[in-house]
Amino acid sequence: MQVGILMGSDSDWQKISGVARSLDEFGVSYEINVMSAHRTPDSVKRYAEEAFGRGIRVIICAAGGAAHLAGVVASHTILPVIGIPVPTELSGGLDSLLSTVQMPGDIPVATVGVGSGGARNAGILAVQILALSDTVLQRKLLDFRRELVKKITEKNMNLKKSLK
Amino acid sequence: MQVGILMGSDSDWQKISGVARSLDEFGVSYEINVMSAHRTPDSVKRYAEEAFGRGIRVIICAAGGAAHLAGVVASHTILPVIGIPVPTELSGGLDSLLSTVQMPGDIPVATVGVGSGGARNAGILAVQILALSDTVLQRKLLDFRRELVKKITEKNMNLKKSLK
Amino acid sequence: MQVGILMGSDSDWQKISGVARSLDEFGVSYEINVMSAHRTPDSVKRYAEEAFGRGIRVIICAAGGAAHLAGVVASHTILPVIGIPVPTELSGGLDSLLSTVQMPGDIPVATVGVGSGGARNAGILAVQILALSDTVLQRKLLDFRRELVKKITEKNMNLKKSLK
Amino acid sequence: MQVGILMGSDSDWQKISGVARSLDEFGVSYEINVMSAHRTPDSVKRYAEEAFGRGIRVIICAAGGAAHLAGVVASHTILPVIGIPVPTELSGGLDSLLSTVQMPGDIPVATVGVGSGGARNAGILAVQILALSDTVLQRKLLDFRRELVKKITEKNMNLKKSLK
Amino acid sequence: MQVGILMGSDSDWQKISGVARSLDEFGVSYEINVMSAHRTPDSVKRYAEEAFGRGIRVIICAAGGAAHLAGVVASHTILPVIGIPVPTELSGGLDSLLSTVQMPGDIPVATVGVGSGGARNAGILAVQILALSDTVLQRKLLDFRRELVKKITEKNMNLKKSLK
Amino acid sequence: MQVGILMGSDSDWQKISGVARSLDEFGVSYEINVMSAHRTPDSVKRYAEEAFGRGIRVIICAAGGAAHLAGVVASHTILPVIGIPVPTELSGGLDSLLSTVQMPGDIPVATVGVGSGGARNAGILAVQILALSDTVLQRKLLDFRRELVKKITEKNMNLKKSLK
Amino acid sequence: MQVGILMGSDSDWQKISGVARSLDEFGVSYEINVMSAHRTPDSVKRYAEEAFGRGIRVIICAAGGAAHLAGVVASHTILPVIGIPVPTELSGGLDSLLSTVQMPGDIPVATVGVGSGGARNAGILAVQILALSDTVLQRKLLDFRRELVKKITEKNMNLKKSLK
Amino acid sequence: MQVGILMGSDSDWQKISGVARSLDEFGVSYEINVMSAHRTPDSVKRYAEEAFGRGIRVIICAAGGAAHLAGVVASHTILPVIGIPVPTELSGGLDSLLSTVQMPGDIPVATVGVGSGGARNAGILAVQILALSDTVLQRKLLDFRRELVKKITEKNMNLKKSLK
Repeated sequence: MQVGILMGSDSDWQKISGVARSLDEFGVSYEINVMSAHRTPDSVKRYAEEAFGRGIRVIICAAGGAAHLAGVVASHTILPVIGIPVPTELSGGLDSLLSTVQMPGDIPVATVGVGSGGARNAGILAVQILALSDTVLQRKLLDFRRELVKKITEKNMNLKKSLK
Repeated sequence: MQVGILMGSDSDWQKISGVARSLDEFGVSYEINVMSAHRTPDSVKRYAEEAFGRGIRVIICAAGGAAHLAGVVASHTILPVIGIPVPTELSGGLDSLLSTVQMPGDIPVATVGVGSGGARNAGILAVQILALSDTVLQRKLLDFRRELVKKITEKNMNLKKSLK
Repeated sequence: MQVGILMGSDSDWQKISGVARSLDEFGVSYEINVMSAHRTPDSVKRYAEEAFGRGIRVIICAAGGAAHLAGVVASHTILPVIGIPVPTELSGGLDSLLSTVQMPGDIPVATVGVGSGGARNAGILAVQILALSDTVLQRKLLDFRRELVKKITEKNMNLKKSLK
Repeated sequence: MQVGILMGSDSDWQKISGVARSLDEFGVSYEINVMSAHRTPDSVKRYAEEAFGRGIRVIICAAGGAAHLAGVVASHTILPVIGIPVPTELSGGLDSLLSTVQMPGDIPVATVGVGSGGARNAGILAVQILALSDTVLQRKLLDFRRELVKKITEKNMNLKKSLK
Repeated sequence: MQVGILMGSDSDWQKISGVARSLDEFGVSYEINVMSAHRTPDSVKRYAEEAFGRGIRVIICAAGGAAHLAGVVASHTILPVIGIPVPTELSGGLDSLLSTVQMPGDIPVATVGVGSGGARNAGILAVQILALSDTVLQRKLLDFRRELVKKITEKNMNLKKSLK
Repeated sequence: MQVGILMGSDSDWQKISGVARSLDEFGVSYEINVMSAHRTPDSVKRYAEEAFGRGIRVIICAAGGAAHLAGVVASHTILPVIGIPVPTELSGGLDSLLSTVQMPGDIPVATVGVGSGGARNAGILAVQILALSDTVLQRKLLDFRRELVKKITEKNMNLKKSLK
Repeated sequence: MQVGILMGSDSDWQKISGVARSLDEFGVSYEINVMSAHRTPDSVKRYAEEAFGRGIRVIICAAGGAAHLAGVVASHTILPVIGIPVPTELSGGLDSLLSTVQMPGDIPVATVGVGSGGARNAGILAVQILALSDTVLQRKLLDFRRELVKKITEKNMNLKKSLK
Repeated sequence: MQVGILMGSDSDWQKISGVARSLDEFGVSYEINVMSAHRTPDSVKRYAEEAFGRGIRVIICAAGGAAHLAGVVASHTILPVIGIPVPTELSGGLDSLLSTVQMPGDIPVATVGVGSGGARNAGILAVQILALSDTVLQRKLLDFRRELVKKITEKNMNLKKSLK
């Protein structure tokens, strides 16, 4: 397993499942766990402490509201931790964003955008980090970027046609 | 010790020292510790887990930014935990407030206002909780309320005089 | 009755009924009243002033918008008052939250999160406060925490199965 | 006395003294009191209930944070109540504004802007309300508007000169 | 006509029709006009300038977004102007609220809450202002407050019954 | 005169004087006036209505709080109107920004950033608009961009030196 | 082509198609392209750099979230660039608005309101800019304003009838 | 050079110099450049495109307001890009934060907190990423965490002494 995905509540899964899809696209292996910084703090601590030894290289955490999961994980590991703020009713997830990103000095959380766009980007960011020591992933990322250009160009064509 | 006061950084002390002053006014004993949810997570966990056994009855936590301290403490104890959001540069502490108050279901943090007013109130709230089983504190709280009325009345007189 | 639940409008009930469910889980007795800080200020005052004498030990108040209910109740009693900010259209309840939590020094409101998560937590917080002088409740809280761990672990299993 | 001015704390006076100056300009009589919705709720209630009988016609309330003063006064009188949100550290008074203006249906507070501009306007608004049944005040208001035009025109001239 | 109601767009009517219902309850006469501060500035100016002469005593303005209507009307009349911020997509109407309430010194707008609660209150506030020189309205307002107490008490009874 | 600069208050001048400096850099002529949408609405209307006939081609308006100036001007002219939101105490000018930019359909205001950066950009934007039919300005703008690159490159060098 | 319309994602089209409708109303020619500042930065750069030479006179860019499209385009052209912030889940598009409008000094983006109102206004603003050197467009704009007055007056009549 | 540090303006340096200090602590080599996404877009593009080939492994970008720098860099490289939102007058940097973090899917920016805490964390995050393939850095990070515990413990002692 190269990437560990944690989420605070199983109900978050549908909002952030894009993180797994993006890892799948690059053939990066991952494991998924529901763990709550507040309801199962000991599992979270154990998971974070053992992750490095188990070969995990990046941990991605998704949580909403007073979203402490990524910060708590980061406090127990030296692995890069990516935080996905999950949307909430309050201003669409501003609480989740601030609780995830505004970490005190010394213990960073690499925060991505709120919600499904952020979830997708958490996966891509993990791939970019892993690619630093994996030339196959580097090539895949370059291909991915070229694919993106093609896709947008195609969408552009389609919109133009549909507007004629 | 009846009350444990934790703060995430010693630089927070000047912003929240009012919490100690209000406990002093009511003769409630307390202890103060600097502990960081992110830099010293194990001390925080240990403190929270042992607090009940050591006779602590209320824990007050002050932190700013992605203010996880109160939530992390709450996840390790069944004691009432009071959270003081410490002011920050971002909107004057809106990040601290949301990170403290927006806890997920099952693990509450009793949140007070941002900054020095909140710090004072954290102390008073602790006294109100302790007073439920302490008639001396009950009497002191009733006196305190009467004193408040006198003080405001006096301030009213003084303002009126100064405006004449 | 150990806990008094007040709400500013009967339409709030569906948003905060979780507060009663959580008290039921712990066998804590409560009473529910619709009272408005602005439309029925005298009933609110009377209720708050008599609560202590009637044996109520914690008052939980739910209100939205310029949510004054918890603050007004707190001004008339020395009992701990818990405030639940009810969601509104404006930024999802940011107005309710700020109106409840930003109390001036001397008169605290123990504020929980906005909406249904906050309602559940208001109940749990009341139980935690009552448990300080009730060993049966203490034991129930410890069991509750253990149950939480089991539940999350089960949800974790289920998610893992569903993803295979 | 035609206008009653209440403020939650004597420290607010310097921020809102413009309210008195504007009433002075129009020769409207007023009285000033420091009264706290939370620390002296009974004085506030009594003041609000007796104001109408004592001949007060408009009540102006200034408060900050969880600014309940105007709302509490409005709940005890049928007189028009004007609310001045006092600036705070949190987003410059957004909490005061929302706590004052977002009143539930049936009990309005006529809210003006945050801070000194709002304080000045609270006075002018009171004059405009009183002028409805006072032709002298009507004439003064018309003169005031003409003066405003002159003043701005003069300021315009001065700026133009200073820029040459 | 005692009250003039203006709204920036006819699509606002359904959001603010409560303003008319509350005036109806008190038998206060009113007229309704759709006028836009930006699309029909001259009609707005003319309306505001002539209102006083036509016997209008309070003008209520509803607008959303960069909600200038109330401010523009206030700039052309010495009558009290009440502003209702209409909800928008952006933070539920925070833009409308700030654009209405944050008026510069000298030209006040009496702002009520965002949306339907605010619309109802705009009507009640107009009645409270008119009542200053109308003893019949004063009596109606006192009755209205008593009715409110009855209604809430009844709702309280109903909720209690439904929960048994 | 090619550009008209209006500001709501002469105290805004120091915050937005950069608008004039940027026009000076490009040799674009302008006139400056203090006019208030609320205190001198008739001057504003007249200015806006006559601007086109007088040869003005772009109007730049700076205002803070319930910043209606740009919108009111735009309602009286078909010239492009640029709005500069002036910083205020409330969230650093969020009120000014929303009041300026959130215009209803049909009457646009070209809004730039809050404060001095926005003021500078208001001037540059005016130049860009005027340059559409002025090849000398076009050339100056291209030079200006090249100069920018040089300046930043130089600053880069200087920082590097200072860090050695 | 007089106007170039760019959008970051083809899914934005339905939210901002009003921009094309308003240009159609005035007979202004335009072209539409889907281009992403982040996914196809080179196409965006090329488009922006060549636009002037191709005769484009105004570029309108719509994007949401970290909405960089308008800013990136503006950095590669001296043409006036109009930015439409597209609504998002986070506070209804506050992120899009701030990312578009808060440009650093020297490189302005003429920002309009969030969403469909803003899209319509982007078109009108483009027309107003083009009209500076096109007397036919000037006449059309004057007619358009007169039409607006008629339309609102009609809507006013209709509302009045429907309320009788 | 392992890390490239870019900032939008040399005036940002004092706010974010902590990023260099944290890299120095770990003996990670870096280079610093002032480059503006909007004023020198071509240098930014070139830098981002060549970084990978030059051996840079992480790029850290600091910018304020409509903070596009990190996003623009990320669009031109497959290297991990870390974004530091620089504080501004508007809500203390909320604009910078949202402009940096709310990236569209496919092109992530690893965002850290606003200001100096964020700057320090950007450096630590870069070290954590580099450490994935550098056992010396891994050991340093573990030491660093132990040092943190010591430092906080010492600060705790000092505070306790100073309070005696």
